[in-house]
Amino acid sequence: MVGSPGKTYGKVYVLRIGHRRERDKRVTTHVALVSRALGANGFILAGDCDKRVLASITGVVSRWGGDFYAGCTPSGVKYVEEWREEGGEVVHLTMYGLPLIEVAPIIAASSKPKLVVVGAEKVPREYYELADYNVSVTSQPHSEVAALAVFLTLLFDDSIYYTVFRGKTTIYPSLRGKRLVLGHGLG
Amino acid sequence: MVGSPGKTYGKVYVLRIGHRRERDKRVTTHVALVSRALGANGFILAGDCDKRVLASITGVVSRWGGDFYAGCTPSGVKYVEEWREEGGEVVHLTMYGLPLIEVAPIIAASSKPKLVVVGAEKVPREYYELADYNVSVTSQPHSEVAALAVFLTLLFDDSIYYTVFRGKTTIYPSLRGKRLVLGHGLG
Repeated sequence: MVGSPGKTYGKVYVLRIGHRRERDKRVTTHVALVSRALGANGFILAGDCDKRVLASITGVVSRWGGDFYAGCTPSGVKYVEEWREEGGEVVHLTMYGLPLIEVAPIIAASSKPKLVVVGAEKVPREYYELADYNVSVTSQPHSEVAALAVFLTLLFDDSIYYTVFRGKTTIYPSLRGKRLVLGHGLG
Repeated sequence: MVGSPGKTYGKVYVLRIGHRRERDKRVTTHVALVSRALGANGFILAGDCDKRVLASITGVVSRWGGDFYAGCTPSGVKYVEEWREEGGEVVHLTMYGLPLIEVAPIIAASSKPKLVVVGAEKVPREYYELADYNVSVTSQPHSEVAALAVFLTLLFDDSIYYTVFRGKTTIYPSLRGKRLVLGHGLG
């Protein structure tokens, strides 16, 4: 398919909260890149607006294509509240939620726009209260990057594997190594 | 199920190559934690043996349970060669491989022990040559943590959601927030 699977729901955005500049730069960048590659339409960084993270993701969008929004919000809580007021629903990924395998089909069946909230180490209580779904990807400690990836693949199913991004750079799959095509500039 | 899904194949280990201490500490720790939480039996760090990463993962194993090995190897290439000599197969996750969705059923159907190789930014050519499978989780740039997570969930299917770790700490899923049980010490 051409265009992001997130459009099935109007839009699917990822909200990263609790980012700390020194500790989280690379992990938050991974969160943003995974959002794009696995079918979401946008990434919002709450709190400290780390320009390096935004530069990484917008750089990837300009080279690799796709219709993807990246921006900041001063308040994650307000962003969540507004998302809900506009008719969207909020999925908070946390070790302490209901099992993904049980909740995912319910979330996927609802046609509402989805905001996926991804925390760092400690998440303020408010997010648990505001979320329509608190969802755990296993009840073991691992990684918000992994939790997001597993959630998105389950939400979008196989469509993430058939998404066409139409960027200046495209990789064609090959058995042993790199086959890059540069300069097409379709997108 | 009690015990790691990786045992279905004898063992499934994750080999992290290209780790750089300052840049990658948190991302490599995420790779290790995801390996454990999503069903692998072991994690090997190649090259620079970063004790902080090993301490993080062994700390989680001691609190949260499970039968999981974590260690280092001075040479990732030798580790891969020995794995193959002992009858195992090697899956290298890379942006430049064959599509996961096509290759995963073939890998899952083979009963051989599996070594999943996860690189950082640049991966030496040798790994592409030595791998039985070079596999891409989308042909877009994102995250080795995400690629590993998606690969393991596809390899082990739903069994990762029903794995029992029997640790001193266990979380029971709940609608809004935290329900921890401490001190059981079953595992």
